[in-house]
Formats: sequence, structure tokens, C-alpha cells
Amino acid sequence: MIDEMDAATDCRDFCAVAELGAQVALAERQLTALAAREQVIQAFVCHDAAAARSRLAPGSGPLAAALVGVKDLIRTADFPTRYGAREERAAGIRQDAWCVAEIRRHGGVILGKTVCTEFAYPVPGPTTNPHDVRRTPGGSSSGSAAAVAAGFVSFALGTQTAGSTIRPASYCGVTGFKPSYGLLHLDGVQAVSTTLDHLGVFARSPRDAWYLTSAMVMSRAEVVVARAPKRLLVLRLPVQIAQNDGYPERIAELAMSLRRDGIAVTTIDLPFRLDQFANLQKDLCYWEIARILRVGGPVRLVPQLEAQLAPYRDSDSAAYFAARSRRQAFQQEFQALAADYDAVLMPAATGAAPPIDDTGDAIMNRFWTALHVPVASVPFWRNDAGLPLGLQLIGAFGSDRALLATAQWFHLRREEAR
Amino acid sequence: MIDEMDAATDCRDFCAVAELGAQVALAERQLTALAAREQVIQAFVCHDAAAARSRLAPGSGPLAAALVGVKDLIRTADFPTRYGAREERAAGIRQDAWCVAEIRRHGGVILGKTVCTEFAYPVPGPTTNPHDVRRTPGGSSSGSAAAVAAGFVSFALGTQTAGSTIRPASYCGVTGFKPSYGLLHLDGVQAVSTTLDHLGVFARSPRDAWYLTSAMVMSRAEVVVARAPKRLLVLRLPVQIAQNDGYPERIAELAMSLRRDGIAVTTIDLPFRLDQFANLQKDLCYWEIARILRVGGPVRLVPQLEAQLAPYRDSDSAAYFAARSRRQAFQQEFQALAADYDAVLMPAATGAAPPIDDTGDAIMNRFWTALHVPVASVPFWRNDAGLPLGLQLIGAFGSDRALLATAQWFHLRREEAR
Repeated sequence: MIDEMDAATDCRDFCAVAELGAQVALAERQLTALAAREQVIQAFVCHDAAAARSRLAPGSGPLAAALVGVKDLIRTADFPTRYGAREERAAGIRQDAWCVAEIRRHGGVILGKTVCTEFAYPVPGPTTNPHDVRRTPGGSSSGSAAAVAAGFVSFALGTQTAGSTIRPASYCGVTGFKPSYGLLHLDGVQAVSTTLDHLGVFARSPRDAWYLTSAMVMSRAEVVVARAPKRLLVLRLPVQIAQNDGYPERIAELAMSLRRDGIAVTTIDLPFRLDQFANLQKDLCYWEIARILRVGGPVRLVPQLEAQLAPYRDSDSAAYFAARSRRQAFQQEFQALAADYDAVLMPAATGAAPPIDDTGDAIMNRFWTALHVPVASVPFWRNDAGLPLGLQLIGAFGSDRALLATAQWFHLRREEAR
Repeated sequence: MIDEMDAATDCRDFCAVAELGAQVALAERQLTALAAREQVIQAFVCHDAAAARSRLAPGSGPLAAALVGVKDLIRTADFPTRYGAREERAAGIRQDAWCVAEIRRHGGVILGKTVCTEFAYPVPGPTTNPHDVRRTPGGSSSGSAAAVAAGFVSFALGTQTAGSTIRPASYCGVTGFKPSYGLLHLDGVQAVSTTLDHLGVFARSPRDAWYLTSAMVMSRAEVVVARAPKRLLVLRLPVQIAQNDGYPERIAELAMSLRRDGIAVTTIDLPFRLDQFANLQKDLCYWEIARILRVGGPVRLVPQLEAQLAPYRDSDSAAYFAARSRRQAFQQEFQALAADYDAVLMPAATGAAPPIDDTGDAIMNRFWTALHVPVASVPFWRNDAGLPLGLQLIGAFGSDRALLATAQWFHLRREEAR
């Protein structure tokens, strides 16, 4: 008898399974896990296991028989897109988003649409955390993180405008990857905030994350090789940022252990003033959201946000473009800093997954989303209750592939330590 | 009897007509002009004059009874979107783009879809230049420029990825405006090159261009007041850039005349190396186009472009992100330069509209599109054959409103000189 947790507990990533030619068997195990646990996890808004099963053909490309979950903010031809809301809003638009079409072109099989908090705002959906169903999977890419963590799919697509990929990846104990802004084309993805929106990827390893990403970006899927870092930068966070579950001590201990291995680890204070950054974020995001949502205005459903946005609706563009210029100065500053390191390290979230009525705090992720730089989260520790805690790796703008090679090294180091 | 050229030759802009409350009468004159000349001009792919006429209600917002043409690269709910191609590609997607929805919300009336060169590449469509039907209106926003110039509409929406708004505006003798990147949300606009694509506006005056733009961006339409410049920068172009129809002499003469009026005019060489800029443009544009067009690949229709794109299809992202960083350095450099001036001046095109089998050269416009800064073209001279020549005004990133106030001053100076 197949153990329904096989697919989730199998530590092999898709690249390893593809090397063995065992993709169809993996997908079958995943569909069995889905049948057994989806009722409790509720990762999907809608899915079609029978249709997916009928498409499990080996040899139809690098993503042949790879099951993929797609966040309900991203259009697909075969499922409605509800943006986490109860009714189907995008009436009539049943067309694959760019990313979905690319995945299918390489043989990937879309299993269904994963739960997204309503219009990607932090109001929890029904999804539970596969490690503890009383806890949140995080948001807004809730179902995508949970679907990979529960072993229902090998990959899932999410989005990140603040921390909606990296944070749920940390809470759910899977790899999360937010590429450099503009690496993945957003056609067919509901806009939230134009210069902050990114596609995100959930996978079993950093190498899998690049495998899927490179398949979308190039005409081939690349298997990236783990690369030992030579120089790392650790960011010391100001006291205003809450850190739970022993995160500061874990990071300090990791830095010491890396130094013992001969890696040059530098520690500095977070190079931004929190108040300045919060204002920047607000001036960018609120101005953009207020414009995007004027058509149809789904946010009317979240009254407190409606009130927050009101002053930005009629404001002219001067403050907005000033914020864009401020961001560019931050970007230049960070780019100069990051260029000297293989990765910048900090916690992926403020702690382990909180109880289910709150999708958690994106404070650890907002900086990097606004700066457009690539970020990965690798499950690296467990707290006293056994809940996963992610290590966040940040790279210079455009260093996506190299960052995931470094992240893969951390992933293997962790795998070996188990 | 109504003279069918009334609408085209009336030098009053929409703001003036709205002040008089005469918008419906203007729209009626425009529909008469359309009936008389559209067969020769061929500005529209499809239009519905009867439906437009039925919507000519005064008082339904700042754009009440304003007839608007929409480039066929932009989706509308009531017309098919063919992207300049023969068949309707966006099958099933009959939804207003963000910009179109905003125009309608303020009372604007969409008359129809204007001709766009096939997929916005430089292969001429059927549209003729209203000033001389043997000449091109320019491209790719061919029909939008011609529709405003022929007096069929008060406004038209175009796009600009290289020079597709400013150049046709110059050829057709109307105001063209390409806002700062990101001022106008691109949802519902077919992507060509993600970090180069901009919406563009055609109108009867810079003040009209801001009136329409501010209506889309804010909840109100602003009437901008002409502002006399204090400091201007004139760019001297390298000899590799062809300049016809006495453009260099006209610019030099204008500079002298402005100086006589007490305006500080500085002249410098174009602050970019042409070869560096051409490479930057190519590395950005080709990489982005190659990815966007992998789905469905409409470019297959233009074999030479297919061949140009091929090496960029499989290339990884390193060269692309290096180009993005190079652009950022150019942007910082230009921003520091432009901040000291009310506008930077240069020709809007290499000369007057060429014969109809060629949509003309975008060399005068590519820099500013790639740098994301706001640009306006104001009809300012006529060549020996009476064909219009535009003056291009470029502003610092985010200075859109101020730039159009300066452009309005040039527009009035020109009107007075007539």
C-alpha cells in the first residue's frame, strides 16, 4: 500500500526524479497524497486530478509529468480565475498567462488553481499549514506553498508584492524563490502594484526552482550545481523588527559555523532606515494600487484598505515619482554592497507560522521586493514545536542563477545535517 | 453647409471647446470629417460612428462627448483587437484595457480602433498622412496620429516602445506625449518589450494631452497652464544622425530667438555614445521581445526580425540584467543633467514624413523611451512642401506635468506666430 505521505516526505527533488525517469510515478504518488489530504489542507480553489492524470506522459519536455499548482491570481485556459474571491471576476478571460503557457510548452501539467487570499490582501483563506493544520501557511500565495509542502505537486507558481512567496515558503518548509524584477513576464497575472509585483516559484529545492524558472525564461531547463560561497554578508536587524523562535541566535550560530568552514562572513546593520523604507513602500504601493483598483475596485471588500488608499487616489504623480527616484538610489546602494558577496543572509520571516487567523508579517521581505533583487528561502531550522524556519538569501540584481546555486549549497548542507 | 475640414483646421483644443460647452457640436463636426475623408486616410481598423453619436451626452464627466481613437494594440470591450494583423488574435478577450476604462469612466467616447502596423513592427499599414496622402503618417501608432490630424477625434491613444508616438505626431502635425514609464498602467495593452513599452497620447495641444492623461491617472482632469521656460538645454546631434528639412538650422534659430527673449539656453553634445546606446537598446528590447513572443510568436510573420531575435531566445539572463544596470546608470546621469532645465530640446524626427512605403526612423526617440523620461512633440515648423516638423521636448523622470506646461508655452508661441 502506498503511504500517502510518501510524496511529501521524499526528500528528492524533481531534478533527481527526472534523472531517474520516475516523473510519472512521482506524479501518481502526489495525486494519491492529494486525494488523502486535500480536504484538510485545502490548497486548491479548483483542480482536476483526472485531467492531470491523463496528461502524465513521459518525454514531452523537461517538465514532462511535472505537476504544477497555479496561484489563483494567474490566468489559465482551463480553470476560472477568481483572485481569491468568491465569484469569477475575469469573466470570459480563459487564457493561459505567459508563465502558464511556458510551463505547458515544456510538458508541465497544471493540476489546478491554488488558494490566494482575497485579491492578495492579508485576509486568510481556508488553506492550512501541512506541518500543523492549526497554523497559517502564510499568504497571499497560501495554497501554492501548502501544495508543495503537502507533496501534492512538485512546483507551484505564486506572486510576491511584499512577502507573499518567501514568507509562506518559510512557514511551510519549502524552497521559495522571487526572481529579479522583470525576469518572468507578468502577462496574464492580475496586477496589484505594478512596480512591486513579481512572480514567485515554490519547489522542493533551489535547484528545482531554477529548473522551472529557466524553462520559462529560456528554451531549456537548467540543472544548477550547488556552489560553496566564499563571501557572505549577514544583516543585523534593528530591535523594532520582532524576531521569534530564536532566529537571531540561529543566524549568529550559522555565521560562526560558516566561518569555521573558512567562509568569510561579514556582519553589518541593516543598511536602510526602517521609517524611510516604510514610507517608500507606502508611496509606491498605495499610489499604484489606488490606480489599478479604480477599475472595478475589488478592494472595496476590505474597508480598512479602502480608507488607507483614499488619499492616494486623487494625488498627483509628484510624490510617486519622487518615491521611484528614492528607490533607485536605494537600488544603487544595495547593488554596490551586494556585488561583493555570494549572498546576503537574514531570516525569511519573523518566526515560525503563526496561528491560522493571521497570515503573518512580511517585514523581512518588503525591502527586497521593493529593490527588485532576487531572493530565495531555504528551509533550514525547526523550532521547538518542529515547525520550519527558513533562511533567506538575497542577491545582487540579476544574479538569480548564481544566488540559487548558493542556495542549493545551503539546501544540501541542511539535507546532510538531518 | 459644413466644411468637412472644419474640425481639422479649427485650432481650438478640447479644453477650449469644453470651456465653451461645445463638445457635442465638435464631435458632430469630427464625425462629418470622418465620413468625408476616412476612405482616403484609413485611420481606423474598425469604428462605429452611430454608436459613438448615440453616446454624445454633455455633462457626463470631464471627457464628456470627447471622441477618442484607440490603437489596435489596446483592448476594448466593444471592438476586436487585432494588433494590426488580419485575424483577431485575442480571441475571446473583449475587455477594456485600464486606460480605455478610465477614459470611459470620465465620459470619453471610443470611436474605434486605429490602425497599428502589424504587431507594432515597422511594416506600413494602409493609413495615409492627412497632410499629404502619398506620405506616411509614421508608425506604429499610424492611425492614432492620422485620426487626430484629420480632425476625426480629439484624442487618440498610442504606444511607444521606440518612437511610435512622438515620430507619427511630428509627421502628422499634432501633439504627441509619451509619459514617464509607469505613469499609465499597461493592463490590457499587448506587450512588445516590457521595460520599453509606454502608452502614448495624441491630442490638439500639450494642455489637451495632460487633460486626458490626468483624467486617467487621477480622479480629475487638469487644465495645465502654459509656463514660460527659464532654462533650456539644446542637444547637438552627432553627424551619424541624419537630419533633413533644415532641422539643425531651425533648432539653432529657435535657440537664438529664445535667448533674445531672455531665456537661458545651453547647447551641449548628445550625452550618449550612439554605439553604446544602440547596444543597450538591442540587449533590452530583443531579449524581452524574444520572451514575450515565444507564446504564439506573431513575429514569425516578419522573417528578418525572427532571424535577429534567434540568438536572444536561448540566451540566459546575465547580458539582459547587465543591460538593465547600464540603463540605470544612463538614467541617473540624465536625471542629474535634466534637473537643471525646464526641458531638453531636439528634433522630434529626422525630418518631415517620408513617402508612404516607409514609416520613418525612430532614432530621435529611442534614447528617451529607453530612459523612461517624459517626452512631448509639438508641431513647430513646416518644410518647403508645407509638411509639419515637430519640436521634441524631454523632461526629467516624473516631471510630466511641468514638461507639458512648458510644451504648452511652445505651442502657444507657435500658434501666435502663425
